Amino acid sequence: MRFCSPRSSWRKRAARKNDTLSSYEHVIIGAGIIGLSTAVELTRAGVPAKDIAIIDPAPISGASWVAGGMLAPVAEVQYGQEELYPLMIRAAELWPALREAVESHTDLATGYREESTLVVAADRADATHLAELLEHQRAHGMTATRLPVRQARKLEPGLHPQLAGAVEIPGDHQVNPRLYCAAAVDVLKKKGATFVEQKATGLVHGCDAAGSDADLPHAEQADRCTAVRLADGTALGVSGSVYICNGVGAATLEGAPALPVRPVRGDLIRLGVAEGRPAPVERVIRGFFEDRPIYVIPRTDGTIAVGATTREDERRAPAADGVYTLLRDAIRVVPGIEDCEFIEALAGERPGTPDDLPLIGKTSGNVVISAGYFRHGILLSALGAKVTAHLGLSADDGDAALNEAAKATGTSLAACRWDRFDAGAH
Amino acid sequence: MRFCSPRSSWRKRAARKNDTLSSYEHVIIGAGIIGLSTAVELTRAGVPAKDIAIIDPAPISGASWVAGGMLAPVAEVQYGQEELYPLMIRAAELWPALREAVESHTDLATGYREESTLVVAADRADATHLAELLEHQRAHGMTATRLPVRQARKLEPGLHPQLAGAVEIPGDHQVNPRLYCAAAVDVLKKKGATFVEQKATGLVHGCDAAGSDADLPHAEQADRCTAVRLADGTALGVSGSVYICNGVGAATLEGAPALPVRPVRGDLIRLGVAEGRPAPVERVIRGFFEDRPIYVIPRTDGTIAVGATTREDERRAPAADGVYTLLRDAIRVVPGIEDCEFIEALAGERPGTPDDLPLIGKTSGNVVISAGYFRHGILLSALGAKVTAHLGLSADDGDAALNEAAKATGTSLAACRWDRFDAGAH
Repeated sequence: MRFCSPRSSWRKRAARKNDTLSSYEHVIIGAGIIGLSTAVELTRAGVPAKDIAIIDPAPISGASWVAGGMLAPVAEVQYGQEELYPLMIRAAELWPALREAVESHTDLATGYREESTLVVAADRADATHLAELLEHQRAHGMTATRLPVRQARKLEPGLHPQLAGAVEIPGDHQVNPRLYCAAAVDVLKKKGATFVEQKATGLVHGCDAAGSDADLPHAEQADRCTAVRLADGTALGVSGSVYICNGVGAATLEGAPALPVRPVRGDLIRLGVAEGRPAPVERVIRGFFEDRPIYVIPRTDGTIAVGATTREDERRAPAADGVYTLLRDAIRVVPGIEDCEFIEALAGERPGTPDDLPLIGKTSGNVVISAGYFRHGILLSALGAKVTAHLGLSADDGDAALNEAAKATGTSLAACRWDRFDAGAH
Repeated sequence: MRFCSPRSSWRKRAARKNDTLSSYEHVIIGAGIIGLSTAVELTRAGVPAKDIAIIDPAPISGASWVAGGMLAPVAEVQYGQEELYPLMIRAAELWPALREAVESHTDLATGYREESTLVVAADRADATHLAELLEHQRAHGMTATRLPVRQARKLEPGLHPQLAGAVEIPGDHQVNPRLYCAAAVDVLKKKGATFVEQKATGLVHGCDAAGSDADLPHAEQADRCTAVRLADGTALGVSGSVYICNGVGAATLEGAPALPVRPVRGDLIRLGVAEGRPAPVERVIRGFFEDRPIYVIPRTDGTIAVGATTREDERRAPAADGVYTLLRDAIRVVPGIEDCEFIEALAGERPGTPDDLPLIGKTSGNVVISAGYFRHGILLSALGAKVTAHLGLSADDGDAALNEAAKATGTSLAACRWDRFDAGAH
C-alpha cells in the first residue's frame, strides 16, 4: 500500500497557494456516525479535542443522514450472518456510554427512544418466517417474546387488525441519526476539534510529506501517512494516526488500501403527522409483508421514518418503486400511515462489503481503517468507534493492534479484518 | 363592497415609513397563470407594460406551480359541467395566440407539447366509463377516437399490456405551467412591468386613499379602489383597474368582495427518468383505474408529472395516501414508472368554487375579479385573461362590462358571474 506521489503534485500546489499545512495528531476522514463517534471515543480516551481534525465536505450527509437509526441487535439478526451477532450485542452494550458521552456535553437532543420494538407478520407465510426467526434469536441467547396479535394491538392500537403474528423485543431501541450526529458535532466543536469541510482525495505517505518525516527511519517513513490531500490541492498534516471512516468514499481514496466497499442503496421516506392527529404508532414497528421487511420508526420530533429497501442499481435518487413499496407495505402494517403527510423521500448509500461485515484494522503504518458497516452502522458505531480509537492510539500496527483492540473491547474482531479479502489491489 | 379603513391605519404607517405611494394604471394581485396571462393580454391590447404592477409575495408558487398543465378541453369533460365545455373549447382556441405572445418575446421554453392525448381504461368497468365518456364528448361535438388497445400500445409501447380500452384525443395538448409562467414573467419584466414581491392584504377605497380621489365625485370615489394595501403596511396606488387574480387568496382580501373560493387540494409527484433509460411514455396518458383518474405527463425536460388527487382535508403538505395512490395507479397504467426516480411530491391548492366555474366580472367600481378557476386554470387562462383584460380596460362596470367582454371573446360568461352566489357577505 505504498503510495508516493511525485513531488510536483500536491506539495507544490500547496506552496503556490501559500497554504500553511496545519498538522493534527489525529485526522479522521468522514464525518458520519463512524467518524464522529471515533472522535468522541478519542476524547473519552484522553485525547485533547484540539488534536483532532475531521475532514468531510458535508458532515452527516452520507448514509448517516438517511439511516433508520435502529439500535436493534435482535431484530437485525439475519440467517448466515452469525459472525455479526456478537458484534451487534457488544455494540448495544456499549451504546449507553457513548450516548452519555455525547448527551452530557450538549443540550441538543439525540432522539433516543427506549420503547420496545414490535416485529409483526402480515400474512401466514410471514408469520412462519417470524416464528422461525424467533427460534433463531432465542437459540443465540437473545430476548424476544411472541405476543398474541390482540396483545400487540393493545400496546399499539395503530397496528393493522389482520396481522398474522407479533414478537416484542424489549432491548431493541432507536436513536435519530441526524440528531445524534449533530449533537456529536456540537460536542466536538465545543471541545475544540477542527472540522475541515472539504473532500479528502488521498493519503500522502512518508516519502513525499511535510513535517516530521525527517525524524523517521526510511522504512517506517514510507509506510506512514504524513498528510491527507484535499480537493483544493492543499493537504492536512498527520502527526499521529489517520482514520478512514468515510463509508462508500473509502473505496476511492488515492494512496489508501483498495477497500471492497460498494454502495448498496436504500430508500427512506419521511412522513409527518397532520396537525391535531395522534401519531399512528409510538414505538418502532418492524414487519414482514410478503417476505419484504418494512420499518415504521416514530421519532421524538413527531415525524415518522419508513424504510428500508435494498437495491444495487444505478439510481442515486430515490426509486419510484422503492417509495411505492414502502408506502404500500407500511400502510398494510400501520393503516394510519395513510393519513400522514409526505415530507420527503431519500436514497442512502450504505457501504456494503462482500460478506456484509465491516472492514476494521490498522495497516503496517499509521492508517486505521473503519468502514463498510453496511446496514448496521448506527448500532455498530459504539463498538466500531471504540475499536477504531484504540487502533489509532496503539503503538502497534497490523494484527498486533487489532488483537489488542479486540481484547480491550471484549470482542473477537477476526471476522472484520480489513484485509481478509484478496488484497491484490494494494 | 364598500370598505373604508380608519385613517389611522395603513396611511399613517406608510407615512411613518416614509414610503412613496407608487401608483400604477393596472394593479394585478396574483402572479400565477391567471394574473400573468392577464398582464400579457393587457400588453397585447396596447397597455404599456410600465403601467402594470403585479403583486405576489412569491410569483408562480401557488396552484400554477403544482398544476399538470393539460390543455385538454375534451379529456377534462365531466358530467354535470356542461356550462364549462364552451369555455374550455374557446380557451383552447385562444391558447396558441397567447402562447405565441409569450414565446415571441423570450428565449425561455414553455414546455408546450403537441402530441395527442391517450385516455386508457384499466379494467372493464373503467372501459365502460371511458366508452360512455366518449359518447358524451362526441354528443358535444368534440373529437375523440376509440382505439384498439393494441393500436394504442403501438403509439405508446410503455402502456400496460392488460388495458381494457383506449381513446385518442388529437386536440388535447400540454404546457409546462412552471416554465410557461417563468417565460411570461421574463417577457413582462423585459417589457417593463413591475413585480412587487409582497403579500397584498386588502383593497383601499376612495374614502381613504391617496392620489386622485379629490377629482372624483363622492359616490364614485367610495366604490373605486384607489390603492392595494401590502403586508409591510405600505400600499400601491391604483389609477385605473385592480385585478383580483390570486386564486385561493382571493377569499381573504380585506375590503374586497367576499369570494366563495376554497382550497381543493391535490397531490402531484414528479419523477425523473434514470440516466440512460428511455422515457416510459412520449405523450400525456390519462387513465381510469378503479374509477380513479390518473394522469402521466411526460415533460419536454425529461421529467414526468403524475397527478392528480382531489381532497378537501387539513393536510397542506402532500398526503401520504395521495402519493401512494398516484404511484400505484400510474404503475398500473404505465409499468415503466416503477423504474423512474422520485424527484418530489407536491400539494397544490386549486381554487374551488361552489359550482366549479370561475368567478369573473367587474364590481360597480374598478375592481376586476378573475378567480376560482379550480382544475382548469391553465387551459382557461387563455380565455380568462382575455376577458379579464377586457373588463379592466372597459369604461363600463358591472353587467355592462361583462356583456361587452363576452361579446369581444365570443363566449357567454353568464355562468361565471362573480356575484352569482348569495352575495350577502359584501
